[in-house]
Amino acid sequence: MRRSLHDISQEINQQLLPSYPTPNTTPDLDRRRRTGIPEFVLAATKPADEVMDLLRRLADADGRALATRCPQPTIARIQERLSGSYEVVIDEEACAVVVAQPGCQLPRAGGQIGILTAGSSDGPVAAEAAVVAREMGAGVVQARDVGVAGLHRLVAPLEGMVAAGVDALIVVAGMDGALPSVVAGLVDVPVIGVPTSTGYGYGGEGVGALLAMLQSCAPGLVVVNIDNGVGAGATAALIANRMAAARAGQR
Amino acid sequence: MRRSLHDISQEINQQLLPSYPTPNTTPDLDRRRRTGIPEFVLAATKPADEVMDLLRRLADADGRALATRCPQPTIARIQERLSGSYEVVIDEEACAVVVAQPGCQLPRAGGQIGILTAGSSDGPVAAEAAVVAREMGAGVVQARDVGVAGLHRLVAPLEGMVAAGVDALIVVAGMDGALPSVVAGLVDVPVIGVPTSTGYGYGGEGVGALLAMLQSCAPGLVVVNIDNGVGAGATAALIANRMAAARAGQR
Amino acid sequence: MRRSLHDISQEINQQLLPSYPTPNTTPDLDRRRRTGIPEFVLAATKPADEVMDLLRRLADADGRALATRCPQPTIARIQERLSGSYEVVIDEEACAVVVAQPGCQLPRAGGQIGILTAGSSDGPVAAEAAVVAREMGAGVVQARDVGVAGLHRLVAPLEGMVAAGVDALIVVAGMDGALPSVVAGLVDVPVIGVPTSTGYGYGGEGVGALLAMLQSCAPGLVVVNIDNGVGAGATAALIANRMAAARAGQR
Amino acid sequence: MRRSLHDISQEINQQLLPSYPTPNTTPDLDRRRRTGIPEFVLAATKPADEVMDLLRRLADADGRALATRCPQPTIARIQERLSGSYEVVIDEEACAVVVAQPGCQLPRAGGQIGILTAGSSDGPVAAEAAVVAREMGAGVVQARDVGVAGLHRLVAPLEGMVAAGVDALIVVAGMDGALPSVVAGLVDVPVIGVPTSTGYGYGGEGVGALLAMLQSCAPGLVVVNIDNGVGAGATAALIANRMAAARAGQR
Amino acid sequence: MRRSLHDISQEINQQLLPSYPTPNTTPDLDRRRRTGIPEFVLAATKPADEVMDLLRRLADADGRALATRCPQPTIARIQERLSGSYEVVIDEEACAVVVAQPGCQLPRAGGQIGILTAGSSDGPVAAEAAVVAREMGAGVVQARDVGVAGLHRLVAPLEGMVAAGVDALIVVAGMDGALPSVVAGLVDVPVIGVPTSTGYGYGGEGVGALLAMLQSCAPGLVVVNIDNGVGAGATAALIANRMAAARAGQR
Amino acid sequence: MRRSLHDISQEINQQLLPSYPTPNTTPDLDRRRRTGIPEFVLAATKPADEVMDLLRRLADADGRALATRCPQPTIARIQERLSGSYEVVIDEEACAVVVAQPGCQLPRAGGQIGILTAGSSDGPVAAEAAVVAREMGAGVVQARDVGVAGLHRLVAPLEGMVAAGVDALIVVAGMDGALPSVVAGLVDVPVIGVPTSTGYGYGGEGVGALLAMLQSCAPGLVVVNIDNGVGAGATAALIANRMAAARAGQR
Amino acid sequence: MRRSLHDISQEINQQLLPSYPTPNTTPDLDRRRRTGIPEFVLAATKPADEVMDLLRRLADADGRALATRCPQPTIARIQERLSGSYEVVIDEEACAVVVAQPGCQLPRAGGQIGILTAGSSDGPVAAEAAVVAREMGAGVVQARDVGVAGLHRLVAPLEGMVAAGVDALIVVAGMDGALPSVVAGLVDVPVIGVPTSTGYGYGGEGVGALLAMLQSCAPGLVVVNIDNGVGAGATAALIANRMAAARAGQR
Amino acid sequence: MRRSLHDISQEINQQLLPSYPTPNTTPDLDRRRRTGIPEFVLAATKPADEVMDLLRRLADADGRALATRCPQPTIARIQERLSGSYEVVIDEEACAVVVAQPGCQLPRAGGQIGILTAGSSDGPVAAEAAVVAREMGAGVVQARDVGVAGLHRLVAPLEGMVAAGVDALIVVAGMDGALPSVVAGLVDVPVIGVPTSTGYGYGGEGVGALLAMLQSCAPGLVVVNIDNGVGAGATAALIANRMAAARAGQR
Repeated sequence: MRRSLHDISQEINQQLLPSYPTPNTTPDLDRRRRTGIPEFVLAATKPADEVMDLLRRLADADGRALATRCPQPTIARIQERLSGSYEVVIDEEACAVVVAQPGCQLPRAGGQIGILTAGSSDGPVAAEAAVVAREMGAGVVQARDVGVAGLHRLVAPLEGMVAAGVDALIVVAGMDGALPSVVAGLVDVPVIGVPTSTGYGYGGEGVGALLAMLQSCAPGLVVVNIDNGVGAGATAALIANRMAAARAGQR
Repeated sequence: MRRSLHDISQEINQQLLPSYPTPNTTPDLDRRRRTGIPEFVLAATKPADEVMDLLRRLADADGRALATRCPQPTIARIQERLSGSYEVVIDEEACAVVVAQPGCQLPRAGGQIGILTAGSSDGPVAAEAAVVAREMGAGVVQARDVGVAGLHRLVAPLEGMVAAGVDALIVVAGMDGALPSVVAGLVDVPVIGVPTSTGYGYGGEGVGALLAMLQSCAPGLVVVNIDNGVGAGATAALIANRMAAARAGQR
Repeated sequence: MRRSLHDISQEINQQLLPSYPTPNTTPDLDRRRRTGIPEFVLAATKPADEVMDLLRRLADADGRALATRCPQPTIARIQERLSGSYEVVIDEEACAVVVAQPGCQLPRAGGQIGILTAGSSDGPVAAEAAVVAREMGAGVVQARDVGVAGLHRLVAPLEGMVAAGVDALIVVAGMDGALPSVVAGLVDVPVIGVPTSTGYGYGGEGVGALLAMLQSCAPGLVVVNIDNGVGAGATAALIANRMAAARAGQR
Repeated sequence: MRRSLHDISQEINQQLLPSYPTPNTTPDLDRRRRTGIPEFVLAATKPADEVMDLLRRLADADGRALATRCPQPTIARIQERLSGSYEVVIDEEACAVVVAQPGCQLPRAGGQIGILTAGSSDGPVAAEAAVVAREMGAGVVQARDVGVAGLHRLVAPLEGMVAAGVDALIVVAGMDGALPSVVAGLVDVPVIGVPTSTGYGYGGEGVGALLAMLQSCAPGLVVVNIDNGVGAGATAALIANRMAAARAGQR
Repeated sequence: MRRSLHDISQEINQQLLPSYPTPNTTPDLDRRRRTGIPEFVLAATKPADEVMDLLRRLADADGRALATRCPQPTIARIQERLSGSYEVVIDEEACAVVVAQPGCQLPRAGGQIGILTAGSSDGPVAAEAAVVAREMGAGVVQARDVGVAGLHRLVAPLEGMVAAGVDALIVVAGMDGALPSVVAGLVDVPVIGVPTSTGYGYGGEGVGALLAMLQSCAPGLVVVNIDNGVGAGATAALIANRMAAARAGQR
Repeated sequence: MRRSLHDISQEINQQLLPSYPTPNTTPDLDRRRRTGIPEFVLAATKPADEVMDLLRRLADADGRALATRCPQPTIARIQERLSGSYEVVIDEEACAVVVAQPGCQLPRAGGQIGILTAGSSDGPVAAEAAVVAREMGAGVVQARDVGVAGLHRLVAPLEGMVAAGVDALIVVAGMDGALPSVVAGLVDVPVIGVPTSTGYGYGGEGVGALLAMLQSCAPGLVVVNIDNGVGAGATAALIANRMAAARAGQR
Repeated sequence: MRRSLHDISQEINQQLLPSYPTPNTTPDLDRRRRTGIPEFVLAATKPADEVMDLLRRLADADGRALATRCPQPTIARIQERLSGSYEVVIDEEACAVVVAQPGCQLPRAGGQIGILTAGSSDGPVAAEAAVVAREMGAGVVQARDVGVAGLHRLVAPLEGMVAAGVDALIVVAGMDGALPSVVAGLVDVPVIGVPTSTGYGYGGEGVGALLAMLQSCAPGLVVVNIDNGVGAGATAALIANRMAAARAGQR
Repeated sequence: MRRSLHDISQEINQQLLPSYPTPNTTPDLDRRRRTGIPEFVLAATKPADEVMDLLRRLADADGRALATRCPQPTIARIQERLSGSYEVVIDEEACAVVVAQPGCQLPRAGGQIGILTAGSSDGPVAAEAAVVAREMGAGVVQARDVGVAGLHRLVAPLEGMVAAGVDALIVVAGMDGALPSVVAGLVDVPVIGVPTSTGYGYGGEGVGALLAMLQSCAPGLVVVNIDNGVGAGATAALIANRMAAARAGQR
């Protein structure tokens, strides 16, 4: 006696109204061409099969595809099902998965970015930013655990990055969110602050860090939302790749 | 030695005070006649047996009854117990269940509404709005994944809906909540915005989307609470059914 | 020695970059045709001369133009400057001004709406909704001071409005924001709740009222932002005018 | 090799400083005499054994003891361990447990209170208020499901309660929190509003209800925190018992 | 050329729709009989003439009338216009005005309440509660400046009040809002906490005080909104007057 | 015809109830002895005459008295009225006034504290902390404008302070509130962070700074409320004076 | 008798402690060299004379200096005092003032940026961003009033800007904050969103706009705080100037 | 076919850019010397093996190491793996673990602190503060369950602590957070308030307690974040140890 409600309503709709195709989730395959940033799959709130299906369609069209915030079962299922026909690489710290056509290399857009983290809990967000930037063809140098409670650790890696010619810096920090302000007061590279959802108590879950970055007294600092490694990595790579193209006389 | 505290207190009450009947949850069977919207059962916070009991009483009185936000065990229990004597249809995306007397058809009030979603995570809320509108006798056309990050996907389905004569539009969007403003700036149909609890970080859980809709610069936009597909579907169907009655000369 | 910085930068820009015309504020003259709602001028944050200029351009194109939230000096200036060439009418309770070409009548779209207020402080917001609806050609009936602290005052005017055939109800309430829920539980007309920025202490400034309306247990209720009489009036008139056209066989 | 850190530090402390007895949680056995309200045990955040120990000590001193917000395993453990030597009664809706010396009756202070709930989800909080009031010797009449979305259900039980002579009313409501304002506008009995953590979306978890009650336009309404059935029941019983004593010439 | 927009719209409405009388603000003259609390006039957001008109109508019907939160010009105007025909008394600390028919005495309902303030900034709110209670016929004893930063000042006045037989206590406190919890832990009288909008920085404007009172660990404490002296005074007097009637055998 | 309402109510009270002396604001003259911190007068919300009266009573009892947050007219009035009989010194940056018996010297408790400010807007709060500490007999060294956007300015003054033997540091910072965390990570002196209400936009008014300090990853940091220079100065001086007494063998 | 408290405390300090020079506000003259962004003077919270003094010292060292958020009296005073010896240019829309040594030209760093505004109230913030970028040597093209309520106005200016080769886009929007997301979904240029403090009601003052931008589904979007035109202009110019240097082979 | 994404990116990085060592989490071994407070390991958000590794490295360098907020599996794993080579002591109430080289004693810095808790739920936070202080060599006296709802329990232990010469007091309180204000008004010892995340409803999770402490009217009170026992213990021990050194003539 059980029929799908959807079926019944579909029938009625078909009698009443012209029908528009309402396909399931469709990746925006044109996005990389239009905006320089490919479509990534945010896996956290999608069923494993929908993630897998999107990755396959993106990889078939584009060569490579990236899913972020993958729950462990989603990762397991992708590896089990797709590793026969695609190259599947896992970034465990970032909970990210890349699915690529066999032999398809990472692009080399030439941009170079730097990523600094304040504490060890900021690692996964930094890793997410890094994998996004790499999928966009940018090179990434990282330095960890250089937060303001021990500023002596900051100078050497920061100077090294600048000397190496990074064109954008991502500074990942939770709790007091002070590191991005300090860095933006020291260098002439655009800085993207990423607050992380560490910290407890009032202003925890990254709120204190976000507010501190929005309130920064250092004017070269821009911000993305809490834990938004994807947005930071994509914007940093966009800037750095554009710089590389300019240097190469392509822009 | 264990007696119910309730029993003991009942006794005392009966000695002390006149007693008022305090039945368990009573469905408001008169609501459809009074307000044009039947009583729906919000299952999320009720025990499965209470949901089942309410559905049965509503279906016996009204022919059909709808429960929304049903936990999986509640759905299973309803199907197991009620599918012998009633027609039980499940809307899996909406987590909704309809229980109907055998042979009882969906009403046909004649109204027609359109539902647009910005992203794939908005699907369940749109489905909830759709099932509510259908139970009120309205026809529903939907278009998915037409959010502002790729506006080129919006125009065709929106024009189609308007041409088809929908009398109310529901626009479901999470994260930045920008789609309802864009739609309300393009058409002369009343638009109901539904923020959804997608998004993470600051303003996540739908708060950013709700605020953006409340702040909309497009004056034909009204709003319901985060994830409130029931309210949006009921109001849209109320408007559209009223229009159909007007066209039919019944109002 | 003082030159305008703008002039200097303009020169430089003209040498460096092709120039795009960046006119001052432009009214969206096409909006009424596209969305059924004309462009209104929000005067509160604009200089008096900009308001006057916008009203003149809108009135020249459309016959009539409405400015809301007019500071007293803006009203005085408009009256002084424009009342020679235009008909200028002031709605003092709403702080609104209509500028019309001489002889240009209010449109008669045929829709009819009702407006209820909970307390006397809700008057100006109700007046704003009313003037907007009238400018869109809808008729308006109002009842004042029918809040839930004395529910006996509510029934007669509400029944009267429904009997008179209003097709949308606006319910304006501050403080506890309870009236819209009560009304939406009694009638089969779509209800638009407008919280007002009355009340003091916690949840004051309309926040408590907004939250109560968003949390309403009555499913036929939709909401606009605090004090947003314009949005409520425009949507109610849009619905009611559409109904009138349907009755007249025009839709 | 494992020793308790506590032991080690105790030793050191004993050498360094005079020692103050720092017993474990001590019930305030004097509270009933001082404030008219006995000490209740809030079980939610305490280990089962600590709850059991407190109940036993209170029951030994006072005859009876009440624990509220008992997790299921705590209830099971209490029943298993204490029902041999004490009378153990469970209030399942309130998740409360009373432990009494065998034969110890509920006190009869003579006060009478009324409890109204807006919706079925408000039941457990009302039950908590009721059990607290009964343990303080007050009689309780209840009416359920009389929320503002169907006001016709409210009048009869409310009139009945007033006629029966209740001296305090508790009105429990979630979501829009409108019922306490309506009740306080109708009767001359002090009303205690209790917001409940029902509702979802913005203002959910009881926040909208709390704000609406704090903003109430009905001046005879006072409020306790979200879900605070204990506070409401205790204050209502305090008032009602005082009234009973006054009538009996004891105050 | 200037005509009132209201006039024009009235005409149209009269042609279109049956007209409902929409008088200006109407005092709820029945409220005292129904709820035991007369209608008070909240003057802060009303024009002076509207306040004066309401006071006159209430005083003519009831003998006496009270306006609270009166701006200085409103007070001046009332005194100037009404002191010829009515007795006008000003409570400067509370910014309240009483208008009474000549010779009309304060009622004597017999209830007695106590009011405690934590600091000197809490005075005006306490004064508002006091004047409300007196207008309802209750007697009031007050003690000032007994906050928790110097607890030694609290005991004597509190004991005195209890000995004098007050039946309800109002405790007014801003900043940390700690005093009501302390008082409710010491006495067996119902306590109404009133947070005041003193304090600066985070949790200032009374928010910290309100939250502390809602979170109180003392179960006999109920709360009204920040600065709501009217609500506290009315509820306290309602309780105390009821007690007096009970003692007198009238209830 | 105008009589004070207070007078009338007083009469009634005197008939009804025993009267407790309710003097006006009373300074807590015992506080310095009990807590090591004298009573200061917070002038912002008190009438000038009340401030003056309190200062006089405190100076007569204690030799010296301090009022903070003095509005300009209050300062003028104090100077005009009191400078004949007392020594009146004004701290313009802090908006503070000291009134002392002629010849009464600042106490010399021997403690030494350091105060650092991040930006120039933090000056008045630092000045308030300084004047409080000096009135408690502590010496104060200050360094200005050493915020994290230019960390090179911090090291020299910080090292100097530590070398000079300060026993408590106050670090005043608005906007991102990062400086206290940096300082607490560098030195072994207890650090009190004071957020200031500078900054605009989200997290402005000191909220971002407060949250950043509460979330600090440097464990030797404690915090007072936004702009609370009095609390910071008093606690720092309490610590430093205690240290001085210990060194002098007095504790 | 009146001596400066500061003088007195200075004396004491000099006896007690070594003294550190605590000059008044010092501009960070090295910032341009270190970070590519010169020190700007935020005039809003500083006395006019302090602003003037800072501008003079910066202009003497650097050739030019910029003050933002200048109150009208500050502007008047600067013009009166400095226009004899310096070139003083006023940007009225931005409330900004540039003070330059006579003949000192704007630098030409070669970068080009675009600025879009959603509505007319966003003009001043856009003007602030523009003046900052120009002072850093970047060229600026602007388009106004292209918000999402009339998207047809957006395409032409956006395409023009991209064709002209801007290397960074600033999108300024209040209320629903939707425009930056739409733009970032259309182009491959990094986009900096600036929420503005327009809008009223809930989420007003720019909060709704900020949250919508932080929640954007378009990954190439970064954000600065509400009304932070300085931060947006500085970062955009930093990126664009770096691109110009790369094209010129200088990086 | 599965290779680590990290490996691949490393290769690319090595070709593109000079490499900076990016070791895993590094403890700041110099912190104790620099700030007087050793590095503690916050275990809650770290994998068990990382916690264990950090403890081992800290204990090897410093003799002893402390991890706080240890999940049960982390404790089990540490005990299993490290108790062979180190002394492992568990503080069950605080969820803390100390790992020490065999025979390594607690330091004896000589400071003495007192810890008071308001209710039994505050125990774990107090225990965390205690273990931190002991690891820094301070002695600790505690008194439990002395909250303001029964103030008579407070005096004896507080007087005892002061008589014993504690140099800093930690007062731990949730819910209304009133106890620290009361204590700071009674003694001349610096008081550190620690709000705890007890309490439910509005202002629950410690927010009400934090705000009450920030708003305290007692000026000798400073605050740390909700549940931050580590910060309170470290600062209190820092102060007390400094005092002990001063008494011993070492500072």
